[in-house]
Amino acid sequence: MMPAPFLLYLGHSADPLAIKTSRGVAMFRPEDCVGEFRHDDCPLTLGLKRMSMAEAVAAGARTLILGIAGAGGKLGAELVADTATALEAGLNVASGLHQRLRDEPRLVALAEARGLKLFDVRDPPPGLAVGKGYERAGNRLLTIGTDCSVGKMVSSLALVRGLRERGVAADFRATGQTGVMIAGEGVAVDAVVADFISGAIEQLSPARSDGGWDVIEGQGSLFHPSFAGVSLGLLHGAQPSALVLCDEPGRAHMRGIPGRALPDLAECLEANLAAARLTSPDVQAVGICLNTSNLAPDEGRRLCAATADSLGLPCTDPVAFGVEPIVEALCPSPSRRSTTASR
Amino acid sequence: MMPAPFLLYLGHSADPLAIKTSRGVAMFRPEDCVGEFRHDDCPLTLGLKRMSMAEAVAAGARTLILGIAGAGGKLGAELVADTATALEAGLNVASGLHQRLRDEPRLVALAEARGLKLFDVRDPPPGLAVGKGYERAGNRLLTIGTDCSVGKMVSSLALVRGLRERGVAADFRATGQTGVMIAGEGVAVDAVVADFISGAIEQLSPARSDGGWDVIEGQGSLFHPSFAGVSLGLLHGAQPSALVLCDEPGRAHMRGIPGRALPDLAECLEANLAAARLTSPDVQAVGICLNTSNLAPDEGRRLCAATADSLGLPCTDPVAFGVEPIVEALCPSPSRRSTTASR
Repeated sequence: MMPAPFLLYLGHSADPLAIKTSRGVAMFRPEDCVGEFRHDDCPLTLGLKRMSMAEAVAAGARTLILGIAGAGGKLGAELVADTATALEAGLNVASGLHQRLRDEPRLVALAEARGLKLFDVRDPPPGLAVGKGYERAGNRLLTIGTDCSVGKMVSSLALVRGLRERGVAADFRATGQTGVMIAGEGVAVDAVVADFISGAIEQLSPARSDGGWDVIEGQGSLFHPSFAGVSLGLLHGAQPSALVLCDEPGRAHMRGIPGRALPDLAECLEANLAAARLTSPDVQAVGICLNTSNLAPDEGRRLCAATADSLGLPCTDPVAFGVEPIVEALCPSPSRRSTTASR
Repeated sequence: MMPAPFLLYLGHSADPLAIKTSRGVAMFRPEDCVGEFRHDDCPLTLGLKRMSMAEAVAAGARTLILGIAGAGGKLGAELVADTATALEAGLNVASGLHQRLRDEPRLVALAEARGLKLFDVRDPPPGLAVGKGYERAGNRLLTIGTDCSVGKMVSSLALVRGLRERGVAADFRATGQTGVMIAGEGVAVDAVVADFISGAIEQLSPARSDGGWDVIEGQGSLFHPSFAGVSLGLLHGAQPSALVLCDEPGRAHMRGIPGRALPDLAECLEANLAAARLTSPDVQAVGICLNTSNLAPDEGRRLCAATADSLGLPCTDPVAFGVEPIVEALCPSPSRRSTTASR
């Protein structure tokens, strides 16, 4: 995979959701990030030092991460130009866009001339097979969402950390460009050929028998008219025993679709449970993760408590308040277990 | 598209469902088919004259249609060898397999040397965008299924013919390799990149305002663990006002998945209606098409009548008994309309 340290690209982005890949890498691999590249009109920052491509190289950066994500994943003229500048300065370039770096002859030529590499993180693994839905061993938790970009990846990573802190084996199974860049492995499931969606996830998360958990990153939403097919195939391929629903309270409309309301949490959970039963008849909802970063902390806590009450499930903000309530529900701590056993 | 007339390939296939592309072309473009190619161990026939590649060329054939379809769409060594023989005999070759003819250097070299063409029918159109689910004008009917290969394409083609016979404008929108070969246009939706499933269908069936119908060929089944993602994205992209459910009574298990039962018709219809409402809130079920070719005609008629009764929808076998009851429900004939109006 792409060599660290990284320069993170923000470009001209004004939409915080559009830079989620760069933000994810900054958040989960901070030790590998030396700076951020943004144009003068970019109002966003990751809190890293702003650098030109040449300054980043001087600071030790080895790879520019094109960590921006628009629907459709296009590589426009501006992005090609900035990528060329990065290569000329001596940086490798990694991209998670649908449109591949290697399909731009100018970039390929530049990289070859300078002995640099282009990483198209969205390339599917070779030799995928169609999913079968046969029962397989192991504990699998899938994060699902009311919408795109509501915190499924962040919640998944937090749950892996929480399980490990409890001494439970757990592995993050990345299914999106950001997750793959963070984990260094995985499959960008939205980029596989449609027939192989569920098969790709069966391959990503095979049977395991060590008592540990695969925590599989969900994508999109069953309620998103652009991407629900991906979400459903992922759900079937994951064959999850546990679902965690992710949401960002207060979002005005479904990502990229002005005017389309988000589903109700209970409705969304029920639709996912019903669909998941096709390959995992005993699937259960085990928690709710809210991204309350737009709320005051008090308000966030109140909303989590109210949501937990109304849905009868542990509810938390994984970043602000941690994932302890959900981990406890999944794997009760020894003291609780003995309490339960003595009832 | 590929030049007619055609030689239809059956190869070594022993499974009638595996030759559905060759059978579809024979059924709907009989005037373009000069013969069939099968090995000695192939127990199947389309009722066409059995020919070698060279005999087919002598009979005027211009293209070999590799009309077989296994899950995964692999191009094995045997198929490559037979394709090479076809090229050596002077035939163009068309394939709907996932694995592309153009990725086989030996075939590409042979075709170039002889001035022949390789047609990879499953290649998606360039420039696809993600679906949006915005309301668009027009009447759209989608055929859905309990399983793969239960008659969605045949039913769609029959419905187009039935509507046209009634003087209603209607167009077949092909979404699978066989449909695309029959129609000469369309998109093999199972071969598009997963993010673009619904977008591909929005593009295939854009707004229309002539009062006519787009009859969109469905794929797979919401209840098939290999392909449900494709089926759901197709359903959302189609934004259908009308659904026709297709089934093959008596099938022992879901296609390719021994041990997995088919869903109940009512359950399957309800799940599709619920999912379709995301982009088409007023969607209605308008009929059921059964493939009763494995039953005696009397039994087939009785089953259609019983199914119509139990589901409260017109039910027919489109091949054996025609699609009149469903067309009548969609577009009542003038005499019926006046009867209804005078009530």
